[in-house]
Amino acid sequence: MLLFLCLCQLHFAVAQDNEKQPPNFVIIFADDLGYGDLGVYGNPTIATPNLDQMAYEGQKWTNFYVAASVCTPSRAALLTGRLTVRSGMSSNKYRVLFPDSKNGLPAAEITIAEQLKQAGYSTACIGKWHLGHKEQYLPTNNGFDYYFGIPYSNDMDMISEMPYWKYWQQEDEAIKTEHFNVPLIRNTEIIERPANQNTITKRYAEEAITFIKENKAAPFFVYLAHNLPHIPLFTSKEFKGKSKRGLYGDVLEEIDHGVGKIISTLKEEGLADNTIVIFTSDNGPWLPFKNNGGSAGLLRAGKGSTWEGGMREPAIFWGPGLIAPGLITDIGSTMDLFTTFSKMAGVDIPRDRIIDGQDLSATLLNKAPGPRKSIFYYRGTELYAVRLGDYKAHFITQGAYGQFGEKEVHEIPLLYNLSHDAGEQFNIAKKHPEIIKEINELVALHKSNLVMGKDQLAERE
Amino acid sequence: MLLFLCLCQLHFAVAQDNEKQPPNFVIIFADDLGYGDLGVYGNPTIATPNLDQMAYEGQKWTNFYVAASVCTPSRAALLTGRLTVRSGMSSNKYRVLFPDSKNGLPAAEITIAEQLKQAGYSTACIGKWHLGHKEQYLPTNNGFDYYFGIPYSNDMDMISEMPYWKYWQQEDEAIKTEHFNVPLIRNTEIIERPANQNTITKRYAEEAITFIKENKAAPFFVYLAHNLPHIPLFTSKEFKGKSKRGLYGDVLEEIDHGVGKIISTLKEEGLADNTIVIFTSDNGPWLPFKNNGGSAGLLRAGKGSTWEGGMREPAIFWGPGLIAPGLITDIGSTMDLFTTFSKMAGVDIPRDRIIDGQDLSATLLNKAPGPRKSIFYYRGTELYAVRLGDYKAHFITQGAYGQFGEKEVHEIPLLYNLSHDAGEQFNIAKKHPEIIKEINELVALHKSNLVMGKDQLAERE
Repeated sequence: MLLFLCLCQLHFAVAQDNEKQPPNFVIIFADDLGYGDLGVYGNPTIATPNLDQMAYEGQKWTNFYVAASVCTPSRAALLTGRLTVRSGMSSNKYRVLFPDSKNGLPAAEITIAEQLKQAGYSTACIGKWHLGHKEQYLPTNNGFDYYFGIPYSNDMDMISEMPYWKYWQQEDEAIKTEHFNVPLIRNTEIIERPANQNTITKRYAEEAITFIKENKAAPFFVYLAHNLPHIPLFTSKEFKGKSKRGLYGDVLEEIDHGVGKIISTLKEEGLADNTIVIFTSDNGPWLPFKNNGGSAGLLRAGKGSTWEGGMREPAIFWGPGLIAPGLITDIGSTMDLFTTFSKMAGVDIPRDRIIDGQDLSATLLNKAPGPRKSIFYYRGTELYAVRLGDYKAHFITQGAYGQFGEKEVHEIPLLYNLSHDAGEQFNIAKKHPEIIKEINELVALHKSNLVMGKDQLAERE
Repeated sequence: MLLFLCLCQLHFAVAQDNEKQPPNFVIIFADDLGYGDLGVYGNPTIATPNLDQMAYEGQKWTNFYVAASVCTPSRAALLTGRLTVRSGMSSNKYRVLFPDSKNGLPAAEITIAEQLKQAGYSTACIGKWHLGHKEQYLPTNNGFDYYFGIPYSNDMDMISEMPYWKYWQQEDEAIKTEHFNVPLIRNTEIIERPANQNTITKRYAEEAITFIKENKAAPFFVYLAHNLPHIPLFTSKEFKGKSKRGLYGDVLEEIDHGVGKIISTLKEEGLADNTIVIFTSDNGPWLPFKNNGGSAGLLRAGKGSTWEGGMREPAIFWGPGLIAPGLITDIGSTMDLFTTFSKMAGVDIPRDRIIDGQDLSATLLNKAPGPRKSIFYYRGTELYAVRLGDYKAHFITQGAYGQFGEKEVHEIPLLYNLSHDAGEQFNIAKKHPEIIKEINELVALHKSNLVMGKDQLAERE
């Protein structure tokens, strides 16, 4: 009788799995947003009710990392599930791609979109790409059916004659979207130049909503990569002066508003139960820009560095039919999205290369303990730090953009217990040589199978 | 017809008001808990699901202040609604009361409990008092029907021969509750000495629950002032090693658990709709104790200082039948509880003295804009800083406990926009002389009617 019941249940489960379409995925990716910039991550004056609600209904991850502390490599790692030291999408010469860069994401790399196409997904990239602006490198050549966005950062291609840093020190009101000759592209065509950045955040959300509505029959994947709150900061009229946190807050509140619209759309279209929405950001706050940059909260330093403030990000997973709500303190990485989505969509993980992403689905669906035990903190192609469990060893430390100190190589690495000391204040290396030994062994293993990709960022025209 | 409808509604409202018992109040007060120590205020590894839930269902205040950055004056100000420079409960000689202090809260001061007794409330003080340990100063002589707790800090009356600071640097395991000869008092009798601090947090919650159950017929006021996470840190067995944040996190998770039990009791007893529960703390984190102290999150400095980290606290107001849920960025103060509770209970505010508390009830009940425009940051009897609207001027800055710098008097005050720059990093005094002028005028007005109370902390036996 018991056996019969078990078989019935098994049959039912299989039948259900077969009938059920794989989940839709929406990644909402902010740019230079800090760990401390959302309400539910402790910001006192930026109101993010929609993201807070997502966190309440879904999972709030507090140890979630990007793979690099600047745009290009962070995005490449997310989309390919691989450390960029393997793909060549990080460099010690230039940290990101520029409008005169020669190359982009190598064709041999496999993106999440390419993976999901194998399972019949409709795929859209909306927003900032920054993995090569030439046609062969654009999203439409990397697994995306549709692209609407800007090909690199919103501060590039400046028209003003004033040097950038000086320029930015002007009053906010003096800075116009027309000063940045950034192209807005639909698929492979430039449709607007300079892109009107005042309305771009709003338009990105609208594009995502339209795509969702038009593609709801098939499973879909939307990668919505806002180019803000990266400076220069712009908002639509409705959000100008709205927040208590100044222009930076206005920008985030507009992004949050768009998140709310997308969630509403998913509910209205009956898609909420089979969709997972993830909100996170590409790297920490750009601190030298003072109040025009964000906050890393209680974490140390920001964008550009391998301190926690540079690479740990808010990460919210929402999906009322799928995600088991709760606080998740396990370690996660943007690279894990590649593997997790592939598994959930029933697509094989490529076997001809090392994939660094891990499968978080058991944690997302059932709050099972997370599989990830370590994080590698790369700067360019140099390994600066490694986290293993609670502990992080810094072999090299270095600030960024003139803040937080010069490059320093540590003969005995600095060691912090990140669960007790997220702010990396109390070096406990002397007390725990056995942990440093364990981390050194992990590094040796990691380096033993590391094949470095050809530097794709070094060449400019 | 319209008039008739209006009159009917008015009649109905009045009738309802007359019939309805005034609300019950529960203040849950932590000790040395930092702005960044709760999940919903951004802590990554301390799990506070019950407090997070309270914040989600109620109001989360992000600009809520205590009136002093150390125990005794902070508590005196909360209970009397007055700056302690008026009552004499702050001093430049000793910052708090000690076991050999001669005095305590002057009898002429009126506490919230004394106010609410006028409206027939049952009143209990459970936990740390720290406003005088002699019988005449104890809670039962200050409007409380019932007292269960310790009369001063949990680190006082040390038995160990090792000096305190050195003592604390031992491993946590070496520190026993028996090393602190703190008395546990019921009403006016010592019932246990040394108080067993391992179980004290649990017992405080249980005492509060018992009092609520036994006094549910009348309106009640419970002031539950935990003596933790002030060091030395202790937890009951069930919470030892439970959190990811070490002993400090264990302690907070036990406090959070008790909060959940109290909320459950209110629901089970049918009291939730007419009770307001407030959670906050007496001052910022005690940072020199490293991981045994808390975190101020993105705020600067901690306990003992007039930087935001010393005096801004998490503050959650919960009451499903009363509190309009939402994020509140308006300014509030623990002193406002005196005035707000008095108003809600229909008790007159004393007219023979200056009361610094303001009435927050319209904000709590209807999310009306908060009435409070300013905060005075006192250290002892010296006014170090003043917040007016978004802006805070520091006339004097000083660190505490060997951190964050010596005393410095600023001829031109430091000026920060706290809404844009909660971390007090970017001094904008030069840009805004008009704001400094306005703050100076407010200070002149404040000082013009200030009568300083006799120092109650200076004398020791």
